[in-house]
Amino acid sequence: MDIQKIFYPKSIAVVGASTKEGTLSRTIFTNLIGGGFNGVLYPVNPKADNILGVKCYPTVSAIPDPVDMAIIVIPPEYVPSVLEECGQRGVKGIIIISAGFKEVGAEGAALENKVVEIVKKYDMALIGPNCLGVINPEPNVAMNAAFGKFMPGSGNIAFITQSGALGTAILDYAKGLGIGFSKFVSMGNKAGVKELDLLLYLKDDPMTKVIIMYVEDLANPRAFIEKAKQVSIENENVKPIIALKSGRTAEGAKAASSHTGALAGSDLMYEALFAQAGIIRAEKVEELLDMAIAFESMPVPKGDKVCIVTNAGGPGIMTTDAVIKYGLKLAKLEESTVAELRKFLPKTSNFNNPIDVIGDAQHDRYEGAMAHVLNDKNVDSVIVLLTPQSVTDVEEIAESVVRTSKASAKPVLACFMGIVDVSKGIDILKKHKIPTYRFPEEAAETLARMFKFGEFINQPKSEVKSYKVDKEKVKSIIEKVKKEGRTFMPELESLEVLNAYGFPTLQSKLGRDKKEALKFAKEIGYPIAMKIVSPDIVHKFDVKGVVINLKSDAEVEAAYDTMMANVKAFKPDAKVWGVNIQEMAKKGEELIVGANRDAMFGPVVMFGLGGIYVEALKDVTFGFAPLKPSDAMKMIKSVKMYKVLEGIRGKPPADLNAVAECMQRLSQLLVDFEDISELDMNPIIVYALGEGCKVADVRILIK
Amino acid sequence: MDIQKIFYPKSIAVVGASTKEGTLSRTIFTNLIGGGFNGVLYPVNPKADNILGVKCYPTVSAIPDPVDMAIIVIPPEYVPSVLEECGQRGVKGIIIISAGFKEVGAEGAALENKVVEIVKKYDMALIGPNCLGVINPEPNVAMNAAFGKFMPGSGNIAFITQSGALGTAILDYAKGLGIGFSKFVSMGNKAGVKELDLLLYLKDDPMTKVIIMYVEDLANPRAFIEKAKQVSIENENVKPIIALKSGRTAEGAKAASSHTGALAGSDLMYEALFAQAGIIRAEKVEELLDMAIAFESMPVPKGDKVCIVTNAGGPGIMTTDAVIKYGLKLAKLEESTVAELRKFLPKTSNFNNPIDVIGDAQHDRYEGAMAHVLNDKNVDSVIVLLTPQSVTDVEEIAESVVRTSKASAKPVLACFMGIVDVSKGIDILKKHKIPTYRFPEEAAETLARMFKFGEFINQPKSEVKSYKVDKEKVKSIIEKVKKEGRTFMPELESLEVLNAYGFPTLQSKLGRDKKEALKFAKEIGYPIAMKIVSPDIVHKFDVKGVVINLKSDAEVEAAYDTMMANVKAFKPDAKVWGVNIQEMAKKGEELIVGANRDAMFGPVVMFGLGGIYVEALKDVTFGFAPLKPSDAMKMIKSVKMYKVLEGIRGKPPADLNAVAECMQRLSQLLVDFEDISELDMNPIIVYALGEGCKVADVRILIK
Repeated sequence: MDIQKIFYPKSIAVVGASTKEGTLSRTIFTNLIGGGFNGVLYPVNPKADNILGVKCYPTVSAIPDPVDMAIIVIPPEYVPSVLEECGQRGVKGIIIISAGFKEVGAEGAALENKVVEIVKKYDMALIGPNCLGVINPEPNVAMNAAFGKFMPGSGNIAFITQSGALGTAILDYAKGLGIGFSKFVSMGNKAGVKELDLLLYLKDDPMTKVIIMYVEDLANPRAFIEKAKQVSIENENVKPIIALKSGRTAEGAKAASSHTGALAGSDLMYEALFAQAGIIRAEKVEELLDMAIAFESMPVPKGDKVCIVTNAGGPGIMTTDAVIKYGLKLAKLEESTVAELRKFLPKTSNFNNPIDVIGDAQHDRYEGAMAHVLNDKNVDSVIVLLTPQSVTDVEEIAESVVRTSKASAKPVLACFMGIVDVSKGIDILKKHKIPTYRFPEEAAETLARMFKFGEFINQPKSEVKSYKVDKEKVKSIIEKVKKEGRTFMPELESLEVLNAYGFPTLQSKLGRDKKEALKFAKEIGYPIAMKIVSPDIVHKFDVKGVVINLKSDAEVEAAYDTMMANVKAFKPDAKVWGVNIQEMAKKGEELIVGANRDAMFGPVVMFGLGGIYVEALKDVTFGFAPLKPSDAMKMIKSVKMYKVLEGIRGKPPADLNAVAECMQRLSQLLVDFEDISELDMNPIIVYALGEGCKVADVRILIK
Repeated sequence: MDIQKIFYPKSIAVVGASTKEGTLSRTIFTNLIGGGFNGVLYPVNPKADNILGVKCYPTVSAIPDPVDMAIIVIPPEYVPSVLEECGQRGVKGIIIISAGFKEVGAEGAALENKVVEIVKKYDMALIGPNCLGVINPEPNVAMNAAFGKFMPGSGNIAFITQSGALGTAILDYAKGLGIGFSKFVSMGNKAGVKELDLLLYLKDDPMTKVIIMYVEDLANPRAFIEKAKQVSIENENVKPIIALKSGRTAEGAKAASSHTGALAGSDLMYEALFAQAGIIRAEKVEELLDMAIAFESMPVPKGDKVCIVTNAGGPGIMTTDAVIKYGLKLAKLEESTVAELRKFLPKTSNFNNPIDVIGDAQHDRYEGAMAHVLNDKNVDSVIVLLTPQSVTDVEEIAESVVRTSKASAKPVLACFMGIVDVSKGIDILKKHKIPTYRFPEEAAETLARMFKFGEFINQPKSEVKSYKVDKEKVKSIIEKVKKEGRTFMPELESLEVLNAYGFPTLQSKLGRDKKEALKFAKEIGYPIAMKIVSPDIVHKFDVKGVVINLKSDAEVEAAYDTMMANVKAFKPDAKVWGVNIQEMAKKGEELIVGANRDAMFGPVVMFGLGGIYVEALKDVTFGFAPLKPSDAMKMIKSVKMYKVLEGIRGKPPADLNAVAECMQRLSQLLVDFEDISELDMNPIIVYALGEGCKVADVRILIK
């Protein structure tokens, strides 16, 4: 499938092009003509002689010359036969605008399946059905193959949307804001080309510097996890991908599913997916655009030190608040810079960041201040603010911001506050691609997102580790479990698996009767824990099958008797293999590391803090196997309660490397054994840095 | 002081009015003339015959007629003598535009003090110095006594700002957005009239429906706590006050202090102050404006059920996400409403909220849908969305939104997405005061803030409770402590105070020697806790002066000896009164309730969860004595970890009423005894609902 044919066709057939004004097909044809498409157009309509003076053909087959792409705008039931015709005619790009497919129910879905088959048979690239169309605003292409109201300007932002309506709205915002695009695709039902295909195509598109996307679901999350990062972060020419995914809340997801029929999966999974794939998630349309213009024209800041240049105190303070709130820092200027500033700024200026050039500043002060702070090695980026005061020469100041910014390799973001008085200055900034924000807080937030993205792409590359493990051992355990028709591995069996994969576990022995229990308790040394071992008991606590801190033979004997009585009472028909006699774990911080296998997302690793944090506060993070060391560490650092692990109240920091290693060993286990459907280590107890961690309980479920 | 003279003067002297274009004084005079001031202007300038054709006077005294207000724009050193003249001449309103006072250092501060003295002497209302001026856009007044670039439109929003520059910027935004004002005041250095004076004035201003303010500090936080709520929530005509306070972060506060010389105090205190005074805090300029237009023209929603009407699925989902995220709910429509909608909407419409009237909807569908959902008793408010699609009749749809909204008593907020295509529709909405937002998330957030404000003002009125306490007892204890020259009350003494004020405490007895310790341990019954009692030991743990869970005479004896040895080792010269033999508290959730007395904010009560929450996560809330029952409960509910207290993991909910009562008793104690400078109950242990709480440790410090 050759997506190039969609964006750079030399000839286009518009199937269903109508003579009637106001119809979609007519609008598209008008848009193509009006947009100045640099190629040949063939309207196809058996009932018309010409459309807008362009010769009409009755069928695609009747077109005498080669056709690269067909845009199909006809009732859905006729689409398959036209596609067949296109296929035989050698058309390689298809856009189906028509609705009436998957989105209208079972019958439409069957029709869509037929479409997919034909498209596959002829190896055609299909956009749609049920979409707004495709636009390539590149001046030497100028293809407006969509039924929006206008052609967007040319720029370096690619825009992929699952909602045509949101597409038109965002194109409209963009026009108002002077934002241009490299490509625009309304994906519709995504029957053929899906978001990942587009991303991989855009990876090598020289016109595209940054990609923004609106999605309600992903067609294939697992493939997305594996490949999207090739575009965003592992690309030689890093191309930031900014995604707005709706359906974050349960209610939103329900609205999404009634809208597209897509079952989108838990939003937490998407959150994890975007994090691991290096995709920046926008929460709002506004953020999507705010970030797009910054990434399009400014380099990522090398560090987190921001300098603010302003002509008013109040906005400077507000921006300072925002800079700090979003995780950046105020740059401390070099002494030499301050000395230079003192030479030309009034005495009453503030020479400490934020640099206040005072209300009566004209462009000379701005130009000098900008040049000096951009030269300061302690400054990584600049936010320049302007409030319109009586003597403010807004346009000249805008020009000086442009000049100083162009002369520097550091990012400059601007906020000229207001709408009316400052509009001409803002126009100048926009024309020269200085990212410009309505309010200072947006500039600060955008800069913070850029910095975090930069940190992410610039971290030392880490590869998935392969630990030396005893794979054969686990294989034989799993085979045995399956042969016995079980799906649950009791703790001791699960521990064998963990031991084979090098997890730090507690010394454990199966006491098959009271005598053995006593013997092993003495071998291990008091105090010990005793836990029931039964293939029929998944939740040991529910049958009172766990006793800890047994300190003597007498306590072991008594506990043994009580436990057997409990099990008999709560679960009379459970097979009992004996009791697990286990060394007591030293006290430490309780964590939970788990895994399961999601139908759409594949093997998932979960991390959280034990106790109330996981259960009540849902403070957990997810990642997808295989995990790199950096993935595991990022998961750990992303829980809200991470602070607790960093060492507070005089406690030493926890040994998080040991925990991250457990997560990576778990990831390897999941990749090696598809049969493992669920695994819970709850708790893992982590000790001070250097002292490792211990798995204190575990259970594994097998498919 | 009569602020009315500032906003409604019949005559104004402009002292320093200049013949030179581009000067501030000239700009102000031009603005007054150009704005169409409905009163008499007297320029005062000894060197000029007239300004813009208006007869000039050499001095204020030379003006033959009464003068209500003087605007002073002359070098600062001449200000006092002009003020004297004004005072003697009976001028009651003063605006000092000139800078060069407190903000420039000690000399300026002295000058400002002189100004304040004169103003007080003649009971004049003073705005400034160092300010942009005052505007009253009310058509029959039309006073533009400021040096901004234009006169804002008339409306019902009053705007008070501590930053003149931010004032001009916001006026500019407002002009661009079509927002009008009832009053505008740039307060400058706030030497005379302060924000609270303005609020109390605006309380009765018939033109003002909502007040927005930008502040960097409050002149008198304590007075603000006591009185601002008379304007906002306790007013018969509730007037929402929305405040943007910068200096939230430590860095921002530093920038603020270098800007205005104001030491603003901790932002957490301000957060508490706004909460308790019913003031809505905006985090960003954008929020300030978003909320202002909503409160100006829409009623507060009666409930949290929102209905979304849209012509596109994607934006509907995004808005659903935002509605839920900000704490509102999606309305479930009545069956009869759905039946009505089915009569005229296409089959493919979504009849479940969000109501999707489909992309080809024209105004008839919008009008029908809006009318029916606004009539639905399950709907408290409506967000109406529009994306510009090919057949969308934007202006007619805007008209139909206006019509249906005016016919309903429920709030309607609109988001017509885009800038270019939708602009005419937006103009219509704005003209008819339908609050209109750029992005749907902003509409949802604003609606949520309105709902929360409504909830706050509509909660059952609660009054400060007066508990029956033994005030004389506490008085005598404090007198004794002061007589002994102490500032610290050891636990047992502090417990006497608490007992006199009816707090739930643990049974405690002072064992003055080992024999008494043993005797009381037996009386109270094992297990018991033993704590050192010394007027010289504030932190008992630091000297190992606390032992818990003593279970026998032998343990008590041993613990006593060890404790005495410890104290001798750690603090050899501490006077020791004995040991506190105390019953052991049952296990429960540990809380901290404390108090101190802030120089600016007065008596402060603190609430938090014990352990890591307070110390590491700073998860605490503050409130100001006297606390009403609702204040105390709001503080409890505002900690991030409130969930823990609601009853999670099968635990019953905690007895928060008991804790709230402790906080109110503490509030009463603080009001009764100014000598108490600090009090810490750490921990208070709270039990299940109905089982109360117990103060397990306490210390009090005396001034």
